Amino acid sequence: MTPRPRRLGYLGPEGTFTSMALDAWPQAEGAQRVPFGSVDAAVAAVRAGEVDATMVPIENSVEGGVSATLDALANGDPLLVTGEVLVPVSFVLAARSGTALADVRAVGTHSHAWAQVRGWMAANLPGATYVPTLSTAAAAQTLGAVHEGRAAASGRPVFDAAVCAPAAATLHRLEVVADGIGDRTGAVTRFVLVARPGALPEPTGADKTTVVLYQRQDHAGGLLELLEQFAARGINMTRLESRPTKASMGSYCFSVDIEGHVRDERLGEALMGLRRICAEVRFLGSYPRADRQRATIAPQASDADFAAARAWLHTIRDGGV
Amino acid sequence: MTPRPRRLGYLGPEGTFTSMALDAWPQAEGAQRVPFGSVDAAVAAVRAGEVDATMVPIENSVEGGVSATLDALANGDPLLVTGEVLVPVSFVLAARSGTALADVRAVGTHSHAWAQVRGWMAANLPGATYVPTLSTAAAAQTLGAVHEGRAAASGRPVFDAAVCAPAAATLHRLEVVADGIGDRTGAVTRFVLVARPGALPEPTGADKTTVVLYQRQDHAGGLLELLEQFAARGINMTRLESRPTKASMGSYCFSVDIEGHVRDERLGEALMGLRRICAEVRFLGSYPRADRQRATIAPQASDADFAAARAWLHTIRDGGV
Amino acid sequence: MTPRPRRLGYLGPEGTFTSMALDAWPQAEGAQRVPFGSVDAAVAAVRAGEVDATMVPIENSVEGGVSATLDALANGDPLLVTGEVLVPVSFVLAARSGTALADVRAVGTHSHAWAQVRGWMAANLPGATYVPTLSTAAAAQTLGAVHEGRAAASGRPVFDAAVCAPAAATLHRLEVVADGIGDRTGAVTRFVLVARPGALPEPTGADKTTVVLYQRQDHAGGLLELLEQFAARGINMTRLESRPTKASMGSYCFSVDIEGHVRDERLGEALMGLRRICAEVRFLGSYPRADRQRATIAPQASDADFAAARAWLHTIRDGGV
Amino acid sequence: MTPRPRRLGYLGPEGTFTSMALDAWPQAEGAQRVPFGSVDAAVAAVRAGEVDATMVPIENSVEGGVSATLDALANGDPLLVTGEVLVPVSFVLAARSGTALADVRAVGTHSHAWAQVRGWMAANLPGATYVPTLSTAAAAQTLGAVHEGRAAASGRPVFDAAVCAPAAATLHRLEVVADGIGDRTGAVTRFVLVARPGALPEPTGADKTTVVLYQRQDHAGGLLELLEQFAARGINMTRLESRPTKASMGSYCFSVDIEGHVRDERLGEALMGLRRICAEVRFLGSYPRADRQRATIAPQASDADFAAARAWLHTIRDGGV
Repeated sequence: MTPRPRRLGYLGPEGTFTSMALDAWPQAEGAQRVPFGSVDAAVAAVRAGEVDATMVPIENSVEGGVSATLDALANGDPLLVTGEVLVPVSFVLAARSGTALADVRAVGTHSHAWAQVRGWMAANLPGATYVPTLSTAAAAQTLGAVHEGRAAASGRPVFDAAVCAPAAATLHRLEVVADGIGDRTGAVTRFVLVARPGALPEPTGADKTTVVLYQRQDHAGGLLELLEQFAARGINMTRLESRPTKASMGSYCFSVDIEGHVRDERLGEALMGLRRICAEVRFLGSYPRADRQRATIAPQASDADFAAARAWLHTIRDGGV
Repeated sequence: MTPRPRRLGYLGPEGTFTSMALDAWPQAEGAQRVPFGSVDAAVAAVRAGEVDATMVPIENSVEGGVSATLDALANGDPLLVTGEVLVPVSFVLAARSGTALADVRAVGTHSHAWAQVRGWMAANLPGATYVPTLSTAAAAQTLGAVHEGRAAASGRPVFDAAVCAPAAATLHRLEVVADGIGDRTGAVTRFVLVARPGALPEPTGADKTTVVLYQRQDHAGGLLELLEQFAARGINMTRLESRPTKASMGSYCFSVDIEGHVRDERLGEALMGLRRICAEVRFLGSYPRADRQRATIAPQASDADFAAARAWLHTIRDGGV
Repeated sequence: MTPRPRRLGYLGPEGTFTSMALDAWPQAEGAQRVPFGSVDAAVAAVRAGEVDATMVPIENSVEGGVSATLDALANGDPLLVTGEVLVPVSFVLAARSGTALADVRAVGTHSHAWAQVRGWMAANLPGATYVPTLSTAAAAQTLGAVHEGRAAASGRPVFDAAVCAPAAATLHRLEVVADGIGDRTGAVTRFVLVARPGALPEPTGADKTTVVLYQRQDHAGGLLELLEQFAARGINMTRLESRPTKASMGSYCFSVDIEGHVRDERLGEALMGLRRICAEVRFLGSYPRADRQRATIAPQASDADFAAARAWLHTIRDGGV
Repeated sequence: MTPRPRRLGYLGPEGTFTSMALDAWPQAEGAQRVPFGSVDAAVAAVRAGEVDATMVPIENSVEGGVSATLDALANGDPLLVTGEVLVPVSFVLAARSGTALADVRAVGTHSHAWAQVRGWMAANLPGATYVPTLSTAAAAQTLGAVHEGRAAASGRPVFDAAVCAPAAATLHRLEVVADGIGDRTGAVTRFVLVARPGALPEPTGADKTTVVLYQRQDHAGGLLELLEQFAARGINMTRLESRPTKASMGSYCFSVDIEGHVRDERLGEALMGLRRICAEVRFLGSYPRADRQRATIAPQASDADFAAARAWLHTIRDGGV
C-alpha cells in the first residue's frame, strides 16, 4: 500500500472546492493540511518534499481541463497521481450581512467559477462588474476580513459579493444572497492527489491510468497512430486533452486517461507500444477510480487472455504446437 | 468576397494583444473599433448585430486553447470564422514613473499572461503577490488612471506594477521596469475574426477549416473513428482540442482545425463522412491561413484526383469502362 | 433492364456443374446454349461477340477461388458480371453398366472434383489411380462414348470410372457405383454470368459488387489502406482473393466482393476513394445476389444519410448553417 | 540447428520443378529422395514419419498460391515449414525424336503449366487439344516410356507432345520442339520444405514467418482488425492468401507470410495479439528467406526498441520513472 501521507498540500485557502476534495479523501484524516495560493506552488511543494502529497483540480465537467495542473504534471521532475476525488460543484452568491441582491455592484470570484455562473449573472445582476480573484474562497475571505474589521489597511474591497462554495460562505461568516446559481446543475470537479514517485496503488479492478504522450516531430497523422496502440489492445480512453508543448504554435502533447492499471497486461503492452513510437511517454500514475466503476475489458483483452497468448508464444518459439 | 466589416468588436480595452491583432488585420482599416470586456460580450455583440465581426483570441502557443472563445463559438447561434491573425506575444513589467523593481509588492495582469511569466517572477520578484485582472491592458489602464488622478474614488490600486504588452505601457504612459519577461521566447497568440453566417472567404490554396465534432453517445473508440474520416481522404489536422459538452463529466466534443477549404473536394467528402457518423458537426468556417502556408495535399487527394474519380464513377455506373 | 441474352456460352460439355448453373438461371430459358472446353475459351467468346454472355465458375466453398475465371476477368478487355448462381455440389462415382466398385482401377475427373473426394477415395478405393480430365462431365462423356462404341479409334479409355455430377452420369447412360462421395456435405459452387459492358442490372437492395484492386507499387501496408476505404463508409466485404499480377513474385492484386450496388452512395464514394489511391480499379459489375440476402447497411451509411450529408455540405459551402 | 533430413519426400517424379527445388536445396545433399504422386501424399508421408521432410510448391508468380499445399498445411496434424527455395520456371515443348511442331495434335501437361503457356499455344498450335496430366514430368515420362517401348500395354498415348521443364525432356530423352514457351518471362515458383514440429531454424535477420489465421465467426470487418495487429508493431506482410475454411460458402481463413522470425520481439507481440482476437492461429514456421533479403524493420520496431520499452515498463510498474 501507498503509505498514508502525513502532510498534505492543497490549493487553498480553506473553503476552496479543493479543500472540500481533501475533506472527502479518507486517507487525509489526521494529516496536516497545508494550503497553497496556486496549483504551481502546491505542486512545487511536493517536488521539494515540503509536503508528502498535494490535492489539485484537474478537470471540471463544465470548464474542462485545468491547464495549470496539466502543465505542472507534464513538466518538471516526475510526479505520480495516487488517487482521485470527484466533488459536486455548487455555487452561492455570498455577501456581508445585510447586503441585498440589488446592492451588489461588483462580484469577486475565480475566473473558472465566473464562467459557470455567467448565465445567472446576466439574468439577475446584468449591471454587476466582475472582479477576478485567485480562488473562490479568496473572494469570500476578502469580504469576511472586511466584515471583521481586519481589512482596514487596504480600504474598501473592490467587490461587494463573492461567488463561492456554500462552505466558504459559512467559514467566512457571510450571508447567502442566492444559492444554486451555477448555470449547469450536476457540475462536478475532479481532483487528483499528487505525490513523488514511489510504490503504486495496487490494482483494484476499477483503476485509471494517466499518461502524457509526446509525438515524434516529423509525423503526420500521428494522433491516429497513437490511438491505434490502444485499439489494438482493446483499451478504452476516458479523457484526451491536448496541451501545447510550448515549443512552437501548433506543437501539442496529449494528456490521456485510460481505463485500467499499468500492471494490467493490455495496458503494459500498449504503453510499451507508445513508448516505442512516441518521442516521450510520461507515466503519471495508476490509481483507483473515484466512481469505483470497474474497467470495461474488451473481449480477449483480459490478463488471462494475455497469459494464454504468451504461453502459446513460448511453445511455438520452442518448436512446439 | 466577404464584405469589409464597418464595425469591429474586439476583446479590449485598447492595448490588449487582441487590439494588436486588429491593428494587424488589413480589412480593419477604416472600421469603427468597439472594445468589449470579455470574449463572451464580444461574441454576443456579433450575434446581436451590434458589430459586423469581432476579433477574439483562440489559441496561444504556451497556454493552449482559449476556452471562453472555443465555448462561445461551439454553443449558441451559429457563427463563422472568416480570418485569423498571429501576434507575437512579448511581455513587459510596467509601472508608474519612478517605480523601481525593488518597490514592486503586487503585480496585476490576466491569468494567461501570469502563467507565461511565472518563471521570471519567481527569479526576480519572488515575494510579489499576483492580482488577477480582466486583461493585461486593464492592469495597465488601472495603473495609468491612478497616475493621472482619475482613480481617486476607488483609492490606491491593489498592485503597483502590471504585466502587459509594450503597447499597453506606452498607451497608459507607464514606465517599462523590465522587458522580455516571458518565460518562452517566440510565444505567439492566434486570433480569429468571427462574423455571422454569410458568404465564405474564397479558397486561396492556403486555407484552414474549423469544425466542432460531437460524437454519438453510445460509442467507444469514437475519436479514432473520427480521425479515420480525415485519414481516408488524406487530410492533415493542425489542431485538436477537447472541450466538455457540459452535459456530464467525461463527455467531450472536439474542436478541430484541418488544412484546406470546405470547397476542396477532400474536405467536403470528409465533412460529409463526419456528418453521417457524428451526433453533430458544427462548421465554423474556412478562411485563409495567417502564415500563407499552402496545404500539404496528400498524393491522390487533389481536386483533380477527386474529379477524375467522380468522372470514372459516372462512367461505370452507366455500364461503361 | 439488362436485355435477355440470346446466345449463352458456358463451361461445357453438358453435364458439368456449370451447365447446371445455366439450368438454374431464369433468363437462360429459350437461349441457345454454347459449350466451351475451358473458362478461357468461354470468356474469349464473349469478348469476341460470339455469345452474348457466358456462365463460368468463380468460387467453390471447398476449393476456393477459380483462378482461371478470376484471371480471365481481371485481364484483357473489360467485362461485367451481370448475375450469379449458387449450385449445390454433389458427386457420384459413375461407370459403365456392370462395373463393381472392386473393378475400379483408375478414376477420371477434374482436379477440383478430385480434391473434394480424396477422403472417400482413400477410404474406399485406396489403390485407384487418378487420371485428370478437362471437366467432370468430360470424364463421364469419355466413358459413355466407349459404352456406345463411339470411342473405338482412341482405344480403351485410361480410366474405368468417373467422378461427376449425378446429371452427367444420367446424360451419358452410366451407372452410379456410389453416390454422395464428396468429403464435405453442403459444398456449393458459385457461378457468374459474364457479359460485355452495357447497362447494369438495376439495384434490388440485395446486390453484390465485384472489383479488382491494384495497389501502387511503392506502398507498404497497402492492403490495410484499401480496406479502410470500405470501413470509412461502413461497407461489408464478402470475399477477398489475392491473385498475382504476374509481374513478379509477391506482386498481387485483390479480387473483392462487397455488399451493395455501385449506385449506392456508400459504394460510389468508396470506389472513388479506391480509384484515387490505387494504381488501377477494375469494376467487374453490380448484380443481384443469388441468396437474395439484403445488404447489411451500417448505421448512418444509407443513401438517405448520404443525401442528408450532401445537402448539409451544399448549405455550409454557401455560408449557410 | 535443424538436423539435416535423411529421407526427403517431394512432388515427383524426377524432372518436376519440385525435384529441381530439391536439387537447389543445400541440405538435401546425400539424403534419400522419395517421390510422391501428389502434394497430399508427400505431406501425409511427413506426418506418418515415412520421410523426415518433404518439398512442395506453395506459390507461383503467375498462377498464385498452390491450394493443395496451402490446405494440406492448414489442416491435419501440425507441420512446420523449415525452409524455402525459389526456382525459375521455364517451359519447353518436348516430343519424341522426329516430331515436328506441325505434327502435334494433343499436348499433355499439368494444368498449372498449361495456364502459363496458353498464349504461346494459341499463337503456335491453335488446333492442339490439351490433355491434363498429374505433373509436367509425368507428361514427359509418358512420352518417354512410349519412346522406349515400355508403354505397349496401355497403347498409344493420348498426346504427342509435353509441356515440361528442360530437365524433364533431357531425363526422358525427348527432343525440344520449342523452348521458352512460357507467356511470362521471369516466372518463378516458390517451394517450401515441410517437417514435423521440432526446433525452429535460428533467426538469420533475413527470415520469413508463415501463419494461418481463423477469424471469430461473429465478426464484421475482421480482416482489417487482423492487419492492424501487424501495423501496430510495424510488421510487413509479404503474402496474404484467403482459403475456404470449407465450413460454408464465404467462410475464409487467411494464409499469411510476414517478414521476420517468431523470436523477433515485434512478431512475438503481434502473434500474441492475433492469438487473442482470432478463433485460431496456426503457426507454420519461421525460416530463412530464399532471397536472403533482410527484413525491413520499421522505425522503433527493432528488438532493442522492444527491450528498452520493456525495461521502462518494469521501472514504471515499480513506481520508478
